[in-house]
Amino acid sequence: MPQRVYIQEVVTRDGFQSEPRFIPSEHKVALLNALARTGLAKLEVTSFTSPKAIPNLRDAEAVMRAIDRVAGVEYCALVPNVKGCERALACEVDEINLVMSASDSHGLANLRMTAEQSLAQFAAILAVAEGTQVAINASLSTTFGCPFEGALGEARIFSLVERLLGLGIARITLCDTTGMANPRQVETLCRQLLTRWPQATFTLHAHDTRGLGLANALAAFNAGIERFDASLGGLGGCPYAPGATGNVCSEDLVHMFEQMGVATGVDLPALLRVAENLQAIVGHHLPGYVLRAGTADRRYAPG
Amino acid sequence: MPQRVYIQEVVTRDGFQSEPRFIPSEHKVALLNALARTGLAKLEVTSFTSPKAIPNLRDAEAVMRAIDRVAGVEYCALVPNVKGCERALACEVDEINLVMSASDSHGLANLRMTAEQSLAQFAAILAVAEGTQVAINASLSTTFGCPFEGALGEARIFSLVERLLGLGIARITLCDTTGMANPRQVETLCRQLLTRWPQATFTLHAHDTRGLGLANALAAFNAGIERFDASLGGLGGCPYAPGATGNVCSEDLVHMFEQMGVATGVDLPALLRVAENLQAIVGHHLPGYVLRAGTADRRYAPG
Repeated sequence: MPQRVYIQEVVTRDGFQSEPRFIPSEHKVALLNALARTGLAKLEVTSFTSPKAIPNLRDAEAVMRAIDRVAGVEYCALVPNVKGCERALACEVDEINLVMSASDSHGLANLRMTAEQSLAQFAAILAVAEGTQVAINASLSTTFGCPFEGALGEARIFSLVERLLGLGIARITLCDTTGMANPRQVETLCRQLLTRWPQATFTLHAHDTRGLGLANALAAFNAGIERFDASLGGLGGCPYAPGATGNVCSEDLVHMFEQMGVATGVDLPALLRVAENLQAIVGHHLPGYVLRAGTADRRYAPG
Repeated sequence: MPQRVYIQEVVTRDGFQSEPRFIPSEHKVALLNALARTGLAKLEVTSFTSPKAIPNLRDAEAVMRAIDRVAGVEYCALVPNVKGCERALACEVDEINLVMSASDSHGLANLRMTAEQSLAQFAAILAVAEGTQVAINASLSTTFGCPFEGALGEARIFSLVERLLGLGIARITLCDTTGMANPRQVETLCRQLLTRWPQATFTLHAHDTRGLGLANALAAFNAGIERFDASLGGLGGCPYAPGATGNVCSEDLVHMFEQMGVATGVDLPALLRVAENLQAIVGHHLPGYVLRAGTADRRYAPG
């Protein structure tokens, strides 16, 4: 089991994309600058997508250009197509995150592309990025199950991972998009992926739809996974799963690992202060637990 | 790892004891009768305590006498003292659950007794129960940490487990009373307890204060624990930890194990229907996840 994990914050992308009210750019920038100073390994800043598709991220360039670049922090952006890649490169992101779905039905519903079409588009995007210093990550949605089709089978995941590596993409995020994963499945699949492709860098992107976000992160950690996406306050959700709650909560995940004696590099009290501010920014309750209860180190006076 | 686990429902005791409104006895009885038919292994029906201490459980006898006794289900009641034991025996409970705190400061705050005083009282209660068929369980509060003192050290827990076994109590519940446990601690401690005392029957009683209820249950399961307390809908809480949320949620726990392919004996759809009714009974939102999102087997039509 690793003794150090890396927490990758997705709140300003995955969290904000489904917020009903527009979050002003200066709030995003201030939040990202505060997050960058808590010890998080990576920030998924925004998405270079169509403003019509995701109105809340219509200020991608403005935010990307206004934020500080704190040393040691990777600044990543989601890129859905060649045009998005050009926009991201113009803003000098450190990493481009490409998204495809392991399930064709989910890919068609969410991206209007089958897995095969997504892979072809990835090749086109990679051609644009060639010769730049940008790192490439691919996020594989519905890795642990599709809300339309159900389980996809490990063979399908192995084959897609092989195709991604074949394209030269060595960073792969295993997404439990609608929170269908269970700990045994996560541990088994992650162990197999790490054994087959030790040269790849895998991230677990867990959702907390059925309350299993932390248990699944624990299972992935037990299998040897070192990198975890998470969203401050647990903000987020998936439009294709009604009733679904959001991403696994960053401060709850950091708290779990730190309590276990596993270093995250994150200053948890600082992260909790940023989460407290997030509540004011979005103007609604956040599902995170530690924000309400305090850490397990909290002591009370008897009586 | 075990392939079968046993889920022990505590909602009508641990859940209801802190509800502000009195739950009518007929609602309790109907709820318990419905729960007994879902495949749960044990029901902690009520507490034979002072009506002043816990007004919501002032109908302990009435409820205990009115419920059906479904074959295969153990009917348990919490007993705080000799008088409570006599009352429980008069109602022919299957199991008496005694409670003490591993931490003296918590014991004094919660029970007005040090661990030593609790053990002496257990001996007096056992004398009353001698010659009856009743089974005895002891719940060890703050096993994984005390909100006043912090970590207690494994030596303290081992010594108290040894004392309980010495009294002839072979069923012991490890309670994470205020949700301070972390998965590494749970797995390590449970593994050691099961190795040292294979003849004992240990239960994990997890709270979800910091969102770690399911992750801690998973860790205990990985160590070999087969028995888990849980509360329908996640109802419950601890008055000594402000901001604390409740017990680990029964239907979420059953869902996790069933998704992992671990048999619980519980009919999850039936349990979810009972949880739905519970929401109407208590008149407020319940923190359970699967109740909102549906199980991971739920399918959607694309588009």
